[in-house]
Amino acid sequence: MSGNVFGSGFVIVPFGESHGKCIGVVIDGCPAGLKLDVDSIQKELNRRRPGQSKISTPRTEEDRFEILSGIFNGYTTGAPIAMIVENKDIESSKYDKIKNTPRPGHADFTAWYKYGGFQDYRGGGRFSGRTTISFILAGALAKQLLKKVLQIEILAHTVALGGIKVERAISVEEIKKNTEANPVRCADPKIAEKMIKRIEEVQREGDSVGGIIEAVCINIPTGLGEPLFRNIESELSKLLFAIPAVKGVEFGSGFRAADLLGSQNNDPFIIESNKIRTESNNAGGILGGISTGMPIICRIAIKPTASIAKPQKTVNLQSMTPTEIAVEGRHDPVIVPRAVPVVEAALAIVLVDFAIQRGLIPPILPKSG
Amino acid sequence: MSGNVFGSGFVIVPFGESHGKCIGVVIDGCPAGLKLDVDSIQKELNRRRPGQSKISTPRTEEDRFEILSGIFNGYTTGAPIAMIVENKDIESSKYDKIKNTPRPGHADFTAWYKYGGFQDYRGGGRFSGRTTISFILAGALAKQLLKKVLQIEILAHTVALGGIKVERAISVEEIKKNTEANPVRCADPKIAEKMIKRIEEVQREGDSVGGIIEAVCINIPTGLGEPLFRNIESELSKLLFAIPAVKGVEFGSGFRAADLLGSQNNDPFIIESNKIRTESNNAGGILGGISTGMPIICRIAIKPTASIAKPQKTVNLQSMTPTEIAVEGRHDPVIVPRAVPVVEAALAIVLVDFAIQRGLIPPILPKSG
Amino acid sequence: MSGNVFGSGFVIVPFGESHGKCIGVVIDGCPAGLKLDVDSIQKELNRRRPGQSKISTPRTEEDRFEILSGIFNGYTTGAPIAMIVENKDIESSKYDKIKNTPRPGHADFTAWYKYGGFQDYRGGGRFSGRTTISFILAGALAKQLLKKVLQIEILAHTVALGGIKVERAISVEEIKKNTEANPVRCADPKIAEKMIKRIEEVQREGDSVGGIIEAVCINIPTGLGEPLFRNIESELSKLLFAIPAVKGVEFGSGFRAADLLGSQNNDPFIIESNKIRTESNNAGGILGGISTGMPIICRIAIKPTASIAKPQKTVNLQSMTPTEIAVEGRHDPVIVPRAVPVVEAALAIVLVDFAIQRGLIPPILPKSG
Amino acid sequence: MSGNVFGSGFVIVPFGESHGKCIGVVIDGCPAGLKLDVDSIQKELNRRRPGQSKISTPRTEEDRFEILSGIFNGYTTGAPIAMIVENKDIESSKYDKIKNTPRPGHADFTAWYKYGGFQDYRGGGRFSGRTTISFILAGALAKQLLKKVLQIEILAHTVALGGIKVERAISVEEIKKNTEANPVRCADPKIAEKMIKRIEEVQREGDSVGGIIEAVCINIPTGLGEPLFRNIESELSKLLFAIPAVKGVEFGSGFRAADLLGSQNNDPFIIESNKIRTESNNAGGILGGISTGMPIICRIAIKPTASIAKPQKTVNLQSMTPTEIAVEGRHDPVIVPRAVPVVEAALAIVLVDFAIQRGLIPPILPKSG
Repeated sequence: MSGNVFGSGFVIVPFGESHGKCIGVVIDGCPAGLKLDVDSIQKELNRRRPGQSKISTPRTEEDRFEILSGIFNGYTTGAPIAMIVENKDIESSKYDKIKNTPRPGHADFTAWYKYGGFQDYRGGGRFSGRTTISFILAGALAKQLLKKVLQIEILAHTVALGGIKVERAISVEEIKKNTEANPVRCADPKIAEKMIKRIEEVQREGDSVGGIIEAVCINIPTGLGEPLFRNIESELSKLLFAIPAVKGVEFGSGFRAADLLGSQNNDPFIIESNKIRTESNNAGGILGGISTGMPIICRIAIKPTASIAKPQKTVNLQSMTPTEIAVEGRHDPVIVPRAVPVVEAALAIVLVDFAIQRGLIPPILPKSG
Repeated sequence: MSGNVFGSGFVIVPFGESHGKCIGVVIDGCPAGLKLDVDSIQKELNRRRPGQSKISTPRTEEDRFEILSGIFNGYTTGAPIAMIVENKDIESSKYDKIKNTPRPGHADFTAWYKYGGFQDYRGGGRFSGRTTISFILAGALAKQLLKKVLQIEILAHTVALGGIKVERAISVEEIKKNTEANPVRCADPKIAEKMIKRIEEVQREGDSVGGIIEAVCINIPTGLGEPLFRNIESELSKLLFAIPAVKGVEFGSGFRAADLLGSQNNDPFIIESNKIRTESNNAGGILGGISTGMPIICRIAIKPTASIAKPQKTVNLQSMTPTEIAVEGRHDPVIVPRAVPVVEAALAIVLVDFAIQRGLIPPILPKSG
Repeated sequence: MSGNVFGSGFVIVPFGESHGKCIGVVIDGCPAGLKLDVDSIQKELNRRRPGQSKISTPRTEEDRFEILSGIFNGYTTGAPIAMIVENKDIESSKYDKIKNTPRPGHADFTAWYKYGGFQDYRGGGRFSGRTTISFILAGALAKQLLKKVLQIEILAHTVALGGIKVERAISVEEIKKNTEANPVRCADPKIAEKMIKRIEEVQREGDSVGGIIEAVCINIPTGLGEPLFRNIESELSKLLFAIPAVKGVEFGSGFRAADLLGSQNNDPFIIESNKIRTESNNAGGILGGISTGMPIICRIAIKPTASIAKPQKTVNLQSMTPTEIAVEGRHDPVIVPRAVPVVEAALAIVLVDFAIQRGLIPPILPKSG
Repeated sequence: MSGNVFGSGFVIVPFGESHGKCIGVVIDGCPAGLKLDVDSIQKELNRRRPGQSKISTPRTEEDRFEILSGIFNGYTTGAPIAMIVENKDIESSKYDKIKNTPRPGHADFTAWYKYGGFQDYRGGGRFSGRTTISFILAGALAKQLLKKVLQIEILAHTVALGGIKVERAISVEEIKKNTEANPVRCADPKIAEKMIKRIEEVQREGDSVGGIIEAVCINIPTGLGEPLFRNIESELSKLLFAIPAVKGVEFGSGFRAADLLGSQNNDPFIIESNKIRTESNNAGGILGGISTGMPIICRIAIKPTASIAKPQKTVNLQSMTPTEIAVEGRHDPVIVPRAVPVVEAALAIVLVDFAIQRGLIPPILPKSG
């Protein structure tokens, strides 16, 4: 059965494997008349790209994208947009041994079982973090549409990494100013330093760490979100859990709401500049699955990188005997920082889908450059 | 736009409002030949029903269900199954005042905005917790199919409530034995007592509490779950967030994974009775979005009941002036225990959808009673 | 698998069997603020209702509809609208014999095979023409929306019946004036008389006839229709073929186009009142699957009523031996006239779905009565 | 809104424009373990390819396909399969003049209107017949699956062209033997000659002709097809009408059923080799939208090629004044023969989608070569 199609108004169909020819995506439903901002797409790809710093995998990929369809004279046409990024620095030899020896924490075993051994196992194949390039490509377009038509911005940053946490409130300004200034994408520079140290420690031990990403979406119009199963939280979480390594999603006060009283957790309604707002934002900008007009706030738990150099127990799928594996190949001690732009992309894709469905982004954009 | 349709193989379409004629659901895609177990459906409705104890709303509803279509001679026919539960104890008078005064924490404001004031506001209308009857009805059928054909069982229980937490591991046996034995549906009887006391305290203060539900799904076959956007975590979280008051969802180690090392969080593969299993289950039974064969484990954060007797700040939507509201009407000081069967229903609906898609439940069941 | 859901913006989910409790439909995505016109819905039901004349089945059904959800204070709320029509004049006794003896031309055999004998066979069950009440209910709402917001009207009429054909062009005025004035719903009164005679003839012989319905949709805005698989012809034909007994669908010159030259079939573009129109309309108002702004014209072939009194060869499904069947029960010698409002309903449902998707009908209607 | 996604079990997502970089398709849901038969895909592309004979466009395209994803070691992996065919012989200069002068019978006007002038108009862009390469690519895979797993074969042939018709019944053997032996793909060699002469006549006059294609699908299992909106006729017609130039679709006796009596049109059930069959096949192998086990038979009306050399009336979209156009560029005097493999592809795509949904094709194929 099919599972690689997401969306109603802005539909994305990713394809491609880590060590195949390319990673790509088809976007269906993008309004006509959007001037393609090639640089901003490349910038987003670069944020996700490996080899950005010593705390990421040494796989070197330029990750240049190519447009196959849907753009004419520099503008979107309303036709499906296909885009690809070629895989170049492919070194598959080391993956032969994982063919029959599933790496703990990876999808090797479940993919093998589900696809009867026909899956492309090289580099995790279809389950590799590299496939999130599809999210980035579609998300970059989505971000452009949101910004241009609705002034919506999506800002993600690392709030926990390897047990080091940002405990205080972070302002939008801090996120904008600090997040890209350090390799862990933490909006608090001092905490960022601690996180980097922590990573270096575990890296030396051949181990890995996880973390938590927070995302803030601003300038959200009130009334976004469709009923019941297409409420904002359902759709956002659906796409967020499609990012490899995501194990938890919460909105507003989230799991902390379990400790609060109703009188603490409810956000009182107030009037600000003749608009209805809430005094606090424990709802994370969402009530009944519909946007309140306050920032949408969510937090995403990312598990530690599954690939570690330390030997781990596993089994041989052919002989059905116990064995050990120490994962060779190139891998990140932590994927949280590289997941930050992917989280932003996922949020952008869902929000633009809602905005198109609700008619807030018209099917033809006015030609303004 | 439409949002009230969920599923691919086992499709549910809920309808109905809290103070309208009924709450109902259409189920499309249920295999033919399932002997309808009327008692088990009613039992699930009773678990969710109000007025079960002093810690739930005094609204009295028998919640008897009626079948409108899809059943013939006591068996499912393969045709769409429509079921309804009539609303009987309707007391809408108290809701007139909320028409223009949105209750903090409720969807009153967003529904009013989104539907231009045409929404049925009585008792929360389409956003009322009462609409989860649709989940219960469809979930009861789903549970029957899962149990009968695949021996899958879904067991939810309260692990946190008003700040009182179950800190130790709970066995499946404990859940089965203890959960229904106390009104908070906590599998640890001693913790249950503390939770009840806590509720009584906040109830006296006109306040409310939230909590966390844990769900364990056992006998899950390996290989369940479809690629990317239809992975198990995405689909489960999508349906879980469609339950009113859910603000967080995590699988396996979830947010705790952010504190763990890769070597701690990865589950080593082992062989047990000639089957591949994992030694620990931090993955919550899911790798790459596909079931490993281990129990699926997730936790769901439920916010405190939004309706509280304490006065809260709000605004008048007509005059656009600040005002206060003290929510009258009948409401629960906590909805966590009543949400337990709803969570089970949601999980069952998703799992049966996957099982049908994967061909593990055939389109015609053998006639066995 | 599920097949009972249609649409993206205006979604319909029919349910119910001929001899079950009721026939119903859930409509999801109807804009808020439509004042429900109860009379016009009942009028459409009456047009389809049996027992209207001596050329239709003597089954007497009042076909009164009941609203279960989605309407509040006489207006649509934006929530799913569930409506039902109860089955009252049920006489199932005669259908016992068809349980194991499929009627030629009916779905008895294929339904039995597909649902393993669990199908409700009484009166054709889920495959009965009576299930088109769901189309009528949803179509009546769709027609109201189209007329009110976009002035779109949909006019169907019988152009062939039992070999008697309308050979000349029929104007919109004639359709409006004449169609409802005779029991065969033919816009040419003289041809109508011949058709009635023809029906009386075949009725006496215990036989039945088929025919062709033409539908004209006027005031269609240019640019309706989505790309490729959601083009107007694809979506209209999909819904038209879901009407029992439809065996052919053509648009504009249709099958006749096979005999024409390109220079004859192409519609020259002209300017009329500063709008681009076509001189002829062989395209049936659709080019590239998108509306040209000219009337949408299609023709639908309806096979002869499968139920006939004449004995026919069939087989006994239990003994697997040849046998004969003469279909008792109440049936129409022709269903074409009763299919006319069903065809209109189907077209309305698709067009309103497109109009909502394209943003031509807003999610909230201005409150104007 | 999005319209470029079709299917549930075997999902296709076409992309690309006539004069863009390539035409492509993503296929999602193809079972793992299908050995890719490169030659058979290329053979199908060649059947559709231009320049096959003097009666087709002189555009020369090799139409070699390239696989971007989803294949590993020569087998399908269960991951989405992306395939493209590059556009090479692009000569866009002649299309500048159609930018503002829509060609009668083409989608130039409606595409311009719908996409606000941003559409790629070169060679018809997204509405070009060349985009049917996507159907061919996906259909070739679908055909392989159907043949290999279920022995289903799909055979289309030309039964009418430019007013010349095949009036007699054609056997499956004749179709197999004769269809590919002449450039019009007519299974009756003598009629084929007449058709060719007719084409040569109209070609000299700068005109074009249309025709009718008949398709026969054999070895169809009983019980294929899902309820109501996913019945076989609905789904087949939906995809057939997505082929450019299709203006009519009928099944079995189709429009001819309007002239028949019920006693003539009903197919008597009989027993053959202990299987239930029908004596005649006026139902075209489909009752109640579900396959009877008899061959599925449909006929598709194809309008005359819209591009003709003769001058035609049109309008200038910028000046809104009347003008004339004589379509230059390379075009076929008839597209019926080239549409034959496209019709087969469309039928194969729908049938394989049904077979996967029904579980008749397993998610993993046995490795047999």
